[in-house]
Amino acid sequence: MTDGTFTILGIAGSLRKASYNRAALRAAQQLAPEGVRIDVFDLEGIPPFNQDLENDPPRRVREMKAAVRSADALLFVSPEYNYSIPGVLKNAIDWGSRPAKDNCWAGKPGALMGVSGGLLGTARMQYHLRQVFLNVGVLAVVRPEVMIGQAAQKFDAELNLTDEPTREFVRKLVAALVDWARQLERGRAT
Amino acid sequence: MTDGTFTILGIAGSLRKASYNRAALRAAQQLAPEGVRIDVFDLEGIPPFNQDLENDPPRRVREMKAAVRSADALLFVSPEYNYSIPGVLKNAIDWGSRPAKDNCWAGKPGALMGVSGGLLGTARMQYHLRQVFLNVGVLAVVRPEVMIGQAAQKFDAELNLTDEPTREFVRKLVAALVDWARQLERGRAT
Amino acid sequence: MTDGTFTILGIAGSLRKASYNRAALRAAQQLAPEGVRIDVFDLEGIPPFNQDLENDPPRRVREMKAAVRSADALLFVSPEYNYSIPGVLKNAIDWGSRPAKDNCWAGKPGALMGVSGGLLGTARMQYHLRQVFLNVGVLAVVRPEVMIGQAAQKFDAELNLTDEPTREFVRKLVAALVDWARQLERGRAT
Amino acid sequence: MTDGTFTILGIAGSLRKASYNRAALRAAQQLAPEGVRIDVFDLEGIPPFNQDLENDPPRRVREMKAAVRSADALLFVSPEYNYSIPGVLKNAIDWGSRPAKDNCWAGKPGALMGVSGGLLGTARMQYHLRQVFLNVGVLAVVRPEVMIGQAAQKFDAELNLTDEPTREFVRKLVAALVDWARQLERGRAT
Repeated sequence: MTDGTFTILGIAGSLRKASYNRAALRAAQQLAPEGVRIDVFDLEGIPPFNQDLENDPPRRVREMKAAVRSADALLFVSPEYNYSIPGVLKNAIDWGSRPAKDNCWAGKPGALMGVSGGLLGTARMQYHLRQVFLNVGVLAVVRPEVMIGQAAQKFDAELNLTDEPTREFVRKLVAALVDWARQLERGRAT
Repeated sequence: MTDGTFTILGIAGSLRKASYNRAALRAAQQLAPEGVRIDVFDLEGIPPFNQDLENDPPRRVREMKAAVRSADALLFVSPEYNYSIPGVLKNAIDWGSRPAKDNCWAGKPGALMGVSGGLLGTARMQYHLRQVFLNVGVLAVVRPEVMIGQAAQKFDAELNLTDEPTREFVRKLVAALVDWARQLERGRAT
Repeated sequence: MTDGTFTILGIAGSLRKASYNRAALRAAQQLAPEGVRIDVFDLEGIPPFNQDLENDPPRRVREMKAAVRSADALLFVSPEYNYSIPGVLKNAIDWGSRPAKDNCWAGKPGALMGVSGGLLGTARMQYHLRQVFLNVGVLAVVRPEVMIGQAAQKFDAELNLTDEPTREFVRKLVAALVDWARQLERGRAT
Repeated sequence: MTDGTFTILGIAGSLRKASYNRAALRAAQQLAPEGVRIDVFDLEGIPPFNQDLENDPPRRVREMKAAVRSADALLFVSPEYNYSIPGVLKNAIDWGSRPAKDNCWAGKPGALMGVSGGLLGTARMQYHLRQVFLNVGVLAVVRPEVMIGQAAQKFDAELNLTDEPTREFVRKLVAALVDWARQLERGRAT
């Protein structure tokens, strides 16, 4: 926030090129209010976590942790895989949380959203991810909950988010994240 | 089960060499009853899931799916990472479940257990994993629930499971898995 | 099952007269296949659980436990209240489970479904209820999962379930429950 | 907080007279820091929720809602029943949340703890209750998580909480609740 810009680090839970969730994250970037910038960190290149390596993590993991640390807040945008968090996303969270004394997530304000083809819009993933946040220390925005179902009707063929009510939800989530981060910051005892 | 041996595929959720969970899986192998064999499939070498590759998965994934298919039942032995399933294990499950028409887990009888350093013994991981099982189609044993807490008191320095009450729980879980698989098999309409 | 009729006990999680969930249970009664009867037990009159009274439960609780015991299987039809199981339903389950040696739910085949006004169709309630089933011993059908969202479009003004795709889901769930109960029964070692 | 005293409303999830959870709530009252008072609201007399009555709730429900509203923060102390929230507690939460425009829980800072006989110390209840909080709007303290297992070793025969490490956890939870409520209050935009 050095130049007054509020910076959010966006992380998508899918590696797929034509991912609706990556597309929703791009939409969030465009819908961020004046003075707020969303940068994207790509999970490509994060290898499977092995605790034997936690004190000397791979370069891409170190880059992720540095990016998380330098951001004012976090935005997770993820599909639901098998009624839970994608292994790829959970694996990145596991890396970031270790070693315990060097957990990059601790105390970070965060928000989550997700896109699915079906009606539930990643609801099951979101409650599992909120439970994970309890341990790693991400302080998550409660409302709005953005669960984007029936993706094929919300995005166009170029994966632009075109559904206006959904765009409004995304706009509100980003705004709520900024407000929440500022409330936490102001509230810190001085 | 071709030669009358009931075969269980054991999968550990940690890649760490000195993992208590790998050690608990070795203990299960030793405690399996006469006529039951537990083979271990190592998740080392399973890369992060990318849906773009689901129709042409990496060799190690194909090996995992073949091993799952040829087993009579499955035994998952996993740590809890950040109040949920390790990304490494969830990632392997995600690979195995795709593409949908080639989900290797569907209909498999399964059991789960876990080891942790603290008191809860991976409880939070286990209920998340049970929810994942609902979607991928693993039919999980309900009882006993084997949650091995305070690992340092249950294993010796060579990672042998030495705590007799815990050994008895593991023995019972393996026996319950075999019984459950046989009940499902016998019950299938003919 | 004495006269060859397979009997299911249906329990609705709402006390409201014009409840969509009670209505969905009535629909299930009508959609049950030949040879299957669904009786309804009304939770009205079950007081708040007090463990001090567990050895001498109120009459209505004793009636519930007797009805559960005499049924071949159970069908829970419930709204979602506050992202979880209605207190009214959970309270009835708590009574039925106590004292431990007299748990009426143990080993019963069961199915669950729910109706909500929103899109999620009681998803959050259902996964909490499935976790409860693990402890009380209800053996729940996995598929289909019947989550009836946007209730106002599925029922008519007299609360008849008129949406044909939803009726088909309910039909399939009842059939799956009967099949599951029979598979478990046949599979029991003799 | 009119006279400078910070007031917490304590709610126990059990109606049992000799409840360990009621006892833990009494301990919290004694362990509250200078300037903080914990009042107890007893759920006895709250009838089963019926939405038909939500606009004209029973007297005891109105009393509960008034007590919640006048408190600066909430402390829930509950057993785990059947791997989830006791029906009695969930039922009270359901009453308090209705009608939607008159939800008494919205925006209240809260904390939760629980006591059980076994090792898990109500862990499963706590994560379900946290999910409920998301909907009703209780803003819950994340740390410490107070899960008091093996109750018989922590309380004496008169149900005094005698285990010093546990007393310290309870002390810290109450302090964290007060800090959290104040941080939220200070952070509110002016």
